[in-house]
Amino acid sequence: MPGARPGAKNAARMKATVFVRLKPEVLDPQGDAVRRALGTLGFEGVRGVRIGKLVEIELDGAPAAGEVKARLAKMADELLANPVIEDFEISVG
Amino acid sequence: MPGARPGAKNAARMKATVFVRLKPEVLDPQGDAVRRALGTLGFEGVRGVRIGKLVEIELDGAPAAGEVKARLAKMADELLANPVIEDFEISVG
Repeated sequence: MPGARPGAKNAARMKATVFVRLKPEVLDPQGDAVRRALGTLGFEGVRGVRIGKLVEIELDGAPAAGEVKARLAKMADELLANPVIEDFEISVG
Repeated sequence: MPGARPGAKNAARMKATVFVRLKPEVLDPQGDAVRRALGTLGFEGVRGVRIGKLVEIELDGAPAAGEVKARLAKMADELLANPVIEDFEISVG
């Protein structure tokens, strides 16, 4: 494309993922239901199932990974995870 | 591979994760609600949010990674994901 400036617009986005999991000491009835259902379907050897959330966030700009992690940790603290019963983990890129 | 199987005792269980995501062409109202809520909370530059599931499965035994992936793909096809609107990805270990 004539006049297209490589890296000017499309590169100015980045993706990050927040993994939200129930804390290990919190019961997971949804996971237990899945475990039992897998047994009913004939899948053997399933010892345990835990279900969490996967929050994929697309951000404008391309800040440093450290800065993105700090922003995402704040988002997770304030909205994405319930710190009483959930832990979160952040992956950038 | 040195250090690949350090001991047989704890090796009799393994963990795997199934990531379930909405297909790209499927609308995600929950993700849109989170995006708007992040804006309301003052987080700027959030272009898009997609929400998926994280299914962590603990299996008895220590079969080869390839075999585990095949079993998990079957579980995902039959129960964990809805193939009409969702894709899944498997990570072993």
